[in-house]
Amino acid sequence: MSDTPAAAPASDDPRDPLLGTGAAVLAFDVGGTDTKSAIVDESGRVLGVRRTPTPHDEADPAGAIVAHITSLAAEYREDFPDVSPVAAGLSVPGLVDEARGIGLFASNLGWHDAPLRDLAEHALGLPVAFGHDVRSAGDAEHRLGAARGADDVVVLAIGTGIASAIIAGGRPITAGGYAGELGHALIWPEGELCACGAVGCLETIASAGAIARRYSERSGRKTPGAREVLDASKAGDIVAERVWDDAVEALARALAPLVAILGPELVVIGGGLAEAGRDLFEPVQHRLDALLSFHRRPRLVKAALGDDAGVLGTALRARDLAAGRLDRAHGADVHAVESDPAS
Amino acid sequence: MSDTPAAAPASDDPRDPLLGTGAAVLAFDVGGTDTKSAIVDESGRVLGVRRTPTPHDEADPAGAIVAHITSLAAEYREDFPDVSPVAAGLSVPGLVDEARGIGLFASNLGWHDAPLRDLAEHALGLPVAFGHDVRSAGDAEHRLGAARGADDVVVLAIGTGIASAIIAGGRPITAGGYAGELGHALIWPEGELCACGAVGCLETIASAGAIARRYSERSGRKTPGAREVLDASKAGDIVAERVWDDAVEALARALAPLVAILGPELVVIGGGLAEAGRDLFEPVQHRLDALLSFHRRPRLVKAALGDDAGVLGTALRARDLAAGRLDRAHGADVHAVESDPAS
Repeated sequence: MSDTPAAAPASDDPRDPLLGTGAAVLAFDVGGTDTKSAIVDESGRVLGVRRTPTPHDEADPAGAIVAHITSLAAEYREDFPDVSPVAAGLSVPGLVDEARGIGLFASNLGWHDAPLRDLAEHALGLPVAFGHDVRSAGDAEHRLGAARGADDVVVLAIGTGIASAIIAGGRPITAGGYAGELGHALIWPEGELCACGAVGCLETIASAGAIARRYSERSGRKTPGAREVLDASKAGDIVAERVWDDAVEALARALAPLVAILGPELVVIGGGLAEAGRDLFEPVQHRLDALLSFHRRPRLVKAALGDDAGVLGTALRARDLAAGRLDRAHGADVHAVESDPAS
Repeated sequence: MSDTPAAAPASDDPRDPLLGTGAAVLAFDVGGTDTKSAIVDESGRVLGVRRTPTPHDEADPAGAIVAHITSLAAEYREDFPDVSPVAAGLSVPGLVDEARGIGLFASNLGWHDAPLRDLAEHALGLPVAFGHDVRSAGDAEHRLGAARGADDVVVLAIGTGIASAIIAGGRPITAGGYAGELGHALIWPEGELCACGAVGCLETIASAGAIARRYSERSGRKTPGAREVLDASKAGDIVAERVWDDAVEALARALAPLVAILGPELVVIGGGLAEAGRDLFEPVQHRLDALLSFHRRPRLVKAALGDDAGVLGTALRARDLAAGRLDRAHGADVHAVESDPAS
């Protein structure tokens, strides 16, 4: 029932023609710390994948990002003279209005209502498919990765924070940029104050960042990250065990109402915390199953494309734009034009 | 941005040509207690609206329903000889797979995997648009009622239980029939056992049925319904006040994560409890606003079509089917065929 276009099978080597034949495009996945970029040729090979520090300029945060990707674009053109990109993709974090091409807000990048698509199109001299980083990653998991063929999917990215992309009936849900903020869903009404200003957000307990912070606060010992908390928990550290169990419980309690509301068949989990593997997936699946009754029981699976999902999804969106499948007025509804003969 | 077809303005008199011109259709909205039915003529007048007791037959629950609507259809044909229906709509409660035409499960009607669409088509001799009662009502509110023109909407029906319909990006979300079970979303992990088998469902605290039951349990006084609990609360009954406040708090706590996940611009509340008006809407809106931070702030509004929403939405679906806009393979995606010249 999925109306996603057919795609070549995913491969371990991102330099394989992963995306299938199509337009040559540039892709920029801008994160709070790093920017991941690539150039895709017409055969679908993903070339020159690289990670560069995201520039921060308080006076002109959007301008700094656009200058950075413009200089990356010039380098790609020099390094890959045989590839002539006809469009670019740009994905950013925060609240993103894909339809209007505007970065509404990004706490760690500092912009408000930045017309990023127009700025990037002007600077690059190319049409730009503008999107949200985690929705782009979710799109890639849906079209090429762990959620291929599924119609109703939630893709979670759990790292410093928690973000998600929602696919319902085969289509991404955007709600003008407001959808998918599962990290800021209320879980514990008597819980901790979140950086967003609300109390008891999932992110305050179950992100990799929260796990490390909560362990440090409770044990008095600095910990480098969630991985070390899990290791300590398995070694019998009772504080670590408690912090890890809280994260598992919070994830299950966040997923239970989400399952009641959206009925996903699949929950794809990526980001740093997913590297915990069975130590994360098994207890969350177990607790979630215990909280449900007649509801659909989604399978919890690990993201397949790892760190590359964002840049791959960004490239896919750029290709959609080049193929005329990304309607400007409905930015995110990549899949909406069912009768498009190209799809 | 909505792609719903234009509709005539809603009117206080359902006998006005509310639905606009189109095919003549029959509509049956089957509830656990009553079945609401109507015949719609080509000018869009909703005629012969009536309420009949829903038959219950443990041995053949689906057959009893189909026999009942077949006899209603014969009466409509006799009473309205000038109206020649070319399709029928049938909406039922419970878990409904609209795409496959199957009633998966309905606790108070008693069927499991009943092929209701095929049975009804055979008995009526008409093509049947098969749907879910609350999604049909939500569809009507979206196309004719309180949510006209909105793209991202949640329609709640709060009565004996709590059900909901979700519209995202202008399209109903179904998830194979599993979407919209907000009544069975986990709200209070240490709460009461729900009839569904899970613990702490919204429905155990915030439905009109739960409000009456919880007040009776706590006060030792039988109460006819939620209305009387509200009246007692306003008269200074501290037990009633507590029960009402619990319901308000539970609704806000259920809506907060829903808002984070789906970013609706509008929450439409109908069903018996919505008759409480400002005594319900104002405190829920106030509490919800207090629980949110950067999230979209949905407006809470009362359903406009009242009790008629279900049968009107059922008639709309029958008309979609007659107009070729209800693709069988994507039952619920009434609005999905954007390029349909008829839309």
